Amino acid sequence: MAPSYKVRYFNTPGRAEPIRMILSYGQIPFEDDRVAREDWPKIKPTTPLGQLPVLEVDGKQIPQSTAICRYLANVTNLAGKDAKENLAIDIAIETFEDLKKPMGEYMRERDESKKQEKFQKLKEVIPFYLGKLEEYANKNGGYIALPRITWPDIVFINIYENLLDGLGSDYMNTYPGLQKVKQNVLSQPGIRDWIKNRPKSEKKYDLKQDL
Amino acid sequence: MAPSYKVRYFNTPGRAEPIRMILSYGQIPFEDDRVAREDWPKIKPTTPLGQLPVLEVDGKQIPQSTAICRYLANVTNLAGKDAKENLAIDIAIETFEDLKKPMGEYMRERDESKKQEKFQKLKEVIPFYLGKLEEYANKNGGYIALPRITWPDIVFINIYENLLDGLGSDYMNTYPGLQKVKQNVLSQPGIRDWIKNRPKSEKKYDLKQDL
Repeated sequence: MAPSYKVRYFNTPGRAEPIRMILSYGQIPFEDDRVAREDWPKIKPTTPLGQLPVLEVDGKQIPQSTAICRYLANVTNLAGKDAKENLAIDIAIETFEDLKKPMGEYMRERDESKKQEKFQKLKEVIPFYLGKLEEYANKNGGYIALPRITWPDIVFINIYENLLDGLGSDYMNTYPGLQKVKQNVLSQPGIRDWIKNRPKSEKKYDLKQDL
Repeated sequence: MAPSYKVRYFNTPGRAEPIRMILSYGQIPFEDDRVAREDWPKIKPTTPLGQLPVLEVDGKQIPQSTAICRYLANVTNLAGKDAKENLAIDIAIETFEDLKKPMGEYMRERDESKKQEKFQKLKEVIPFYLGKLEEYANKNGGYIALPRITWPDIVFINIYENLLDGLGSDYMNTYPGLQKVKQNVLSQPGIRDWIKNRPKSEKKYDLKQDL
C-alpha cells in the first residue's frame, strides 16, 4: 500500500512549500495540515526538533525541510540517477541558500540604518548568484541542475516567488534562462493544479498569475 | 586511473576541514592547496562561485562544501545505502547547520550589547540541539545518523572542535554519546594520521590532544 503523507507547517508557503510542491508534482496525495500560530507552543515539544515543517509518513514524524525534499525527490523521480548527477543538484541547492541568506538577514533586521546596509549588500549578492544560476539554466535548456526537471527547479520557483514578492514583480525580467525554468515547472500538471488550488497567501506576487 | 584531487581553501580548518577529513578517512591522496589571504582577490574570480573551498577533480573545479562532502561520501563509503539511510544522514547534516547558526551570528556580532544577547541565545540553542544529537548517538551506538560510521560523524568532530575552541575545553563533558562519536571517528587510521600531521591552526583546542 502507498504510504500516507501529512505535511505539517504554519498557514504560509515558507519552508513547507517546496515539500508541498514536490508531492504535488508527483501527484501524491497528502494532508496539508496548517498549524495556527496560537497552537504552536503546545505542538512544538511534540515535534522531533521543536521545528516545523514536519513530514509525517505513515504517522512517523520527519524533520528538516531540505532533507525531506531530497527524500521525496527519490519518491517522485526528481533526484539524480548517480552521485555525479546528485552533485550538480546539491551545488544548486546550496547556492540557493547563499542567495536566500542576505534576503533573510535583510528581512529580520529591525535597526533602520543597518537595514539599509543589508539592502545594499543584498543588491550585490542576489544578482551575482542569479547570474550564476542563469548560466546553469542556459546550459541545461531551462532547468537548473541537469538537462531535465529535478527538485532544485521546484525549490527555485519558490525563491522566484519570494524575490518578486520582496523586490518587485519585474525583478527577474533580465534572466530569460530562469524565466524558462519557471515556465517549465509551471507547465507540470501536478504543479499547475497545486498553484491554482492552494490556500491563498498574503504575498504581493503569486505564481498563479503566471499560469 | 584514480582521479586526482585538490582541496583549495584558506590556511584554516573552516569549511574545508570536513572535506580534507573525508578524503583522509578514505586514505585518498589529495593536494592540500592553501591560499594566502593576500592572493584571494586575484583567485576569487577564477572560482566557480567566488568562494572557497573548491574541490578540483582531475582539474575540474567543484564548489559548495556540503555538496562536496556528500559527493565524496560516495567515493569513501561514508554515504547511506538507500534513500531512507540518506534521509537520516541529511537530517543530521541540516541539524548541524541549526546548531552552527547562532554560533556564527555570535562570532560575527561587533556590537557589545547585541553580542551579549546573542550569547544568551546561543546558551539555549546549542544545548537543545546537542541534546537531540546525543539521543541520536545513543540510539546508534556512538554514531550520529546510522549504526555505523557515515559522513555526519566526520562533520561532527569539526563542530566538536569548534565548540570546545569557542566555549571551553570541558563544554561537551556532559554528552557521553557524542564523546563516543568523537572517539569512534578519531580511532579511524586515516583520520588519526590526518589530525596528527595536518598544519597547525591557531585554535585553543585541537582534536590532536584527544588522540
